[in-house]
Amino acid sequence: MIQSTRRDLLTGTAAAGAALSLGMLAPTAVEAAAPAAGTQAPNFYRYKVGTLEVTVAMDGKTVTPLADSYVANQPKDAVNAALGGLYMEKDKATHYYTPIAVNTGSKLIVIDTGLGPAMAAQTKGMAGQFLANLAASGVDRNAVDTVIISHFHGDHINGLLNADGTAAFPNAEVMVPEPEWAFWMDDARMNNTPEAQRGNFTNARRVFGPLSAKVTKYGDNKELAPGITSMFTPGHTPGHFSFIVASGNDRVLVQVDVTAGMAPLFVKNPDWTPGFDSDKALAVQTRRKLYDMAVSEKMMVQGFHFPFPAVTRVEKDGTGYRLVPVAWEPAI
Amino acid sequence: MIQSTRRDLLTGTAAAGAALSLGMLAPTAVEAAAPAAGTQAPNFYRYKVGTLEVTVAMDGKTVTPLADSYVANQPKDAVNAALGGLYMEKDKATHYYTPIAVNTGSKLIVIDTGLGPAMAAQTKGMAGQFLANLAASGVDRNAVDTVIISHFHGDHINGLLNADGTAAFPNAEVMVPEPEWAFWMDDARMNNTPEAQRGNFTNARRVFGPLSAKVTKYGDNKELAPGITSMFTPGHTPGHFSFIVASGNDRVLVQVDVTAGMAPLFVKNPDWTPGFDSDKALAVQTRRKLYDMAVSEKMMVQGFHFPFPAVTRVEKDGTGYRLVPVAWEPAI
Repeated sequence: MIQSTRRDLLTGTAAAGAALSLGMLAPTAVEAAAPAAGTQAPNFYRYKVGTLEVTVAMDGKTVTPLADSYVANQPKDAVNAALGGLYMEKDKATHYYTPIAVNTGSKLIVIDTGLGPAMAAQTKGMAGQFLANLAASGVDRNAVDTVIISHFHGDHINGLLNADGTAAFPNAEVMVPEPEWAFWMDDARMNNTPEAQRGNFTNARRVFGPLSAKVTKYGDNKELAPGITSMFTPGHTPGHFSFIVASGNDRVLVQVDVTAGMAPLFVKNPDWTPGFDSDKALAVQTRRKLYDMAVSEKMMVQGFHFPFPAVTRVEKDGTGYRLVPVAWEPAI
Repeated sequence: MIQSTRRDLLTGTAAAGAALSLGMLAPTAVEAAAPAAGTQAPNFYRYKVGTLEVTVAMDGKTVTPLADSYVANQPKDAVNAALGGLYMEKDKATHYYTPIAVNTGSKLIVIDTGLGPAMAAQTKGMAGQFLANLAASGVDRNAVDTVIISHFHGDHINGLLNADGTAAFPNAEVMVPEPEWAFWMDDARMNNTPEAQRGNFTNARRVFGPLSAKVTKYGDNKELAPGITSMFTPGHTPGHFSFIVASGNDRVLVQVDVTAGMAPLFVKNPDWTPGFDSDKALAVQTRRKLYDMAVSEKMMVQGFHFPFPAVTRVEKDGTGYRLVPVAWEPAI
C-alpha cells in the first residue's frame, strides 16, 4: 500500500478533481458538520423581590385560528393590522402562558398552574410544560405549600391535576377567590347557562372535585402568604384577582389576566375587548386603573400571558400602553 | 397511646393554644420551608433563521462606576437622568455581553467570544460565562469550525484563549476583519500611541500570537460561511464589522457594537457618543444608517450588548430608537 504507480496517483487526482467539481469531496474531521441542537433552553427564569425568590416557569404557547370575534368591538381586519404592528402572526391567536412560583423563605407558593397534562399531550409539549419547567428549575412540586388560583379559566386551573386526576401539588392547600368560587360553583347559574356555554362551570367541578378538602377561599386585600397580597381586579371574570408580591422596598404586580390572550394586543389597545372578558366595560376600567398605577409607580409587572419571562415595566404609548421587559440578569 | 384522659386532651389543647398565640407552633412536614434555589436558568436561547440554527449564549454582565466621560458629549447628570428613564441603575455602567453561535448545517460558527477566563475568575462567574453557557446549550466548542471576530476589543476577542493561553476553539479557523488587523497590528501606530493607551494593541498581540496559524482575514460584503455575510460598519473601531445571517426569507442583522456598552442608552440617544467609540461622528452615522434600515425592513437585530437574549426589533422613538424584544419561543 506504500508503493503507488504514477497511474494510481493520476487516477486518484483525477477522481478528486471530479469529486470537487461535483461538490462531492468528503468532509475532513475538522470540516464535519456538528448536528443542530434542535432543542430550546429550559423555559424558566429567576429573580428576587427583596428576600423573596420568584421562579418564572413557562407553561408554553398555543396558536389557533383567529376567530372573527376574537376582539368583540373590532373587525378582524383591524386586529390583523394591529398584529402586524406588533410583529405577531396575522390570522392567528398566539397565546403564551407563564405561571410563577414564589419562595417566601417560610412558604413555597405557586400562582396558577397552566393548561395541564391534557394540553401537554395534545400539543406534544408546546404547552402544558409548567411542571416540567418547574422541575428543571429545581422547584419540587411536592414541597409546594400553597397554590393560589387567580380565576377559574382552564389555563389557570387545569394544571392542578395530574393526568390520572390526582393532585399535581399533593401537599398544597389550594386558595381560590371567594367571588370566583361563588360564581362558577353556583349550580342554578350553571343550569341556566346554555349547555354549549357551560364549559368553565363543568371544568371547575372536574378540577376542584378531587381537591375539595384542600380548598380554602380568600377575599380582597388579604395577605395570602408572607409578602403576597390579593387585589380584586374583576372584569376578565367576575371574581378575578391579581396579587402584589412585596418584600422590603421591592414589589411586583402579578397582573394575571388583566390583559389576557394576546396580551400585547390589549396592552397597546386597552379599550379593545377580548371575547373572553366576561364584563367588558369593567375589564377595560380595571386594565386602565392597574396600568396607570404601574406607569406612575414604575412597577415591575408579571403578566401570565406576556412573552416569557413575562416581567416588564409599563409605559404610556399613545392612547394605550407598551411593555418594556425587565433586563435578564445572568445570576440572582 | 390510644387512650387519653380528658386532662391530657385539655393540657394538649392549652399548650397548642399558647404556642399559637406566641407564633411558636412547630411546622409540620407539609409546612416545612423548601430552600430557595438561588441559581439562575442556564443563560442560553435558541432560534431558527430559515434552516440555520442560532444559539445565543450570554457571556454575562459587568457593573462598574459610571465615569464622568462615559458619554463624551453629555454631562454625567444627563446620563444619569437617561438611565433612570431606562430603569437602569444610576452612577453605574451596566454592560451585558452576548455572543452567538450559528449552525449552518454544514459549518458551526461562533461570532465573538466574550470576556474570557480572566474575567470569569475576577467576577466569580458573573461574566466570562460564554463557554459554560455554550456547553450548557449542547454546543461543543471542539466542533466549532470558524470563529468570526467583529473587532478587536477585549470583550470580543479574549474568549479566544483558555486561561493557559491555548485555543478555546482548538479546531476553528479565526476570521478577523482585514482593516481591524491592519490598524491594531501596526507596530508603528502602537509605538506612536502613549503607553497608557496601548492596551488594545498589546492585548491583540497577546490573543492572536498563539493563534497566528489559524487567522485569516476578511473584507466587506463577503460570505464568511453559508448564510453569514460581512458588513463594514466602522466608527466604534476603525475596522468594526456587523453581519447579516440569512436563510430563505429570514434574516437577522448581527449588529455587534454599532451601539456598545450600555446599548439601550445609545439606542435611545444615537447621537450620544460613548468614550470608547474611536471615530465618534462616523459611529453616529453608522448607527443611524443601520437602525433606519432595521426600522424600515422590520429586521430582527441581534445586539452583543443588548439585554439577553438580545434579539429585538428596532422602532423609531422621538429623535432616537427603541428596542422591541422578539417574543421568546418555548420550542424551536
